[in-house]
Amino acid sequence: MPDLGRREHVDRTVRVRCHELAPAIADLDANLCMIGMAVADATAAGVQLLVLPELATSGYHLTPEEARATALSRTSPVLDGWAAQLAAGAVLVLGFCEADGNELYNSAAVITRRGVLGVYRKTHLWDSEKEIFTPGAVRAGVLDTPLGPLGTLVCYDLEFPEMPRGLALAGAEIIAVPTNWPLLDRPPGERAPEVVQAMAAARASQVAIACCDRRGAERGTAWTQGTVVVGPDGWPRGEKDELGRLDAVVELKATRTRISARNDVFGDRRPALY
Amino acid sequence: MPDLGRREHVDRTVRVRCHELAPAIADLDANLCMIGMAVADATAAGVQLLVLPELATSGYHLTPEEARATALSRTSPVLDGWAAQLAAGAVLVLGFCEADGNELYNSAAVITRRGVLGVYRKTHLWDSEKEIFTPGAVRAGVLDTPLGPLGTLVCYDLEFPEMPRGLALAGAEIIAVPTNWPLLDRPPGERAPEVVQAMAAARASQVAIACCDRRGAERGTAWTQGTVVVGPDGWPRGEKDELGRLDAVVELKATRTRISARNDVFGDRRPALY
Repeated sequence: MPDLGRREHVDRTVRVRCHELAPAIADLDANLCMIGMAVADATAAGVQLLVLPELATSGYHLTPEEARATALSRTSPVLDGWAAQLAAGAVLVLGFCEADGNELYNSAAVITRRGVLGVYRKTHLWDSEKEIFTPGAVRAGVLDTPLGPLGTLVCYDLEFPEMPRGLALAGAEIIAVPTNWPLLDRPPGERAPEVVQAMAAARASQVAIACCDRRGAERGTAWTQGTVVVGPDGWPRGEKDELGRLDAVVELKATRTRISARNDVFGDRRPALY
Repeated sequence: MPDLGRREHVDRTVRVRCHELAPAIADLDANLCMIGMAVADATAAGVQLLVLPELATSGYHLTPEEARATALSRTSPVLDGWAAQLAAGAVLVLGFCEADGNELYNSAAVITRRGVLGVYRKTHLWDSEKEIFTPGAVRAGVLDTPLGPLGTLVCYDLEFPEMPRGLALAGAEIIAVPTNWPLLDRPPGERAPEVVQAMAAARASQVAIACCDRRGAERGTAWTQGTVVVGPDGWPRGEKDELGRLDAVVELKATRTRISARNDVFGDRRPALY
């Protein structure tokens, strides 16, 4: 864990992009090409934080054999290749199918131009993921990135209020969330329910949350395409273009969790009662 | 705490009403009359759970002297009077200014025809409340009511994700939340942010949440009037009428927290990692 306590907090903005890609199922080469193009495009546009979908390297509805065949090690030169594409000070977060010995993980890598800063393994597995992946065994942590303290979750993790709250309490000012949200029935005019949860989690802890969903129907599943960048005030920022790129500027305030003259969303907590 | 573990869970519905009253500032008699009429009206309509606003007996922007003058003890015959107005099996939750010796609390009473089942004291005080009230010192608990296990929070408490989560994990299937939500700026077309947080909290724990706000401008403060009844799926139910009554039917399922063949929002938790 970085020594976040001594960090000096200053007002600043971060240019965030979530790029809602359509991974090709079990086609590693095609996906690496697509990801490389998305990273280059973001670098050219001056994006500071680029978030790509969950399992962007492999697609989602994999057989165990396909997952194995498309998996990457966290020391793969592929990840270093993305690092080399980034500008100084930029951060990339993307989901990938990770192999470590005999185990497979639904992971997210945090990468800067210096290389892989960290890998987070999804700790809450959804449905048939339980038949392929091993759940992460390590608490989600906060990385000290050039953009400030950043936490990472993967998809269903976000639906456990303990997760974004824990990251924010550990000092995260931005949380990046690669997702694959299957399209569910919802009342007309409503946002995807996962977006509502992101908005609430952001406001509760005054933390920015950037969720990158995917597109492209895959083996009978359509996706919510609910990509959203939420500011620390809980409201979405930016508009998604027809290529699936959502560009947003997020303001991070030095005052952070202070919300009135007498209130601070962390200072007001009553941990002895939880 | 009731022995909720042995309770048999069955599919059932609850007819909920939140009645968005306009308390008169520091006028106890007027407020008791208004509350008595609201309870009678709900009883006549067959409401099973009636939720009334925070500090319904006193109004909100009180001076310390006014708070003292309008405060009630939890053993006040006034509370027994409301109990006598209820039908068998019905539950009333309302906010009141509570006196206990020299201390004042921003409390909520849970009342059935048999009398006062419990009183919860707000544990997270908002802004100038800190100059009048003593924060509650006891963990929010779940009461075994005729409608099933019910938890109570007051207003700002709901904005701490630990609070609704804790009640749901302790067995609550419905959470009643008397509130006074001041009107804040928000983007056009958006719900009040507190409503977004209620929706997210409900879905995360598959628990129903009924928030009763207030109306009537008071000493320069306008109110959100964001009264909402959220089902365990996270979506609002019912419509508010011109008198401020929101009637909604909430379905509580025996399967409760199970959300897919392989997923349960409680069973999937990883408490060792939080």
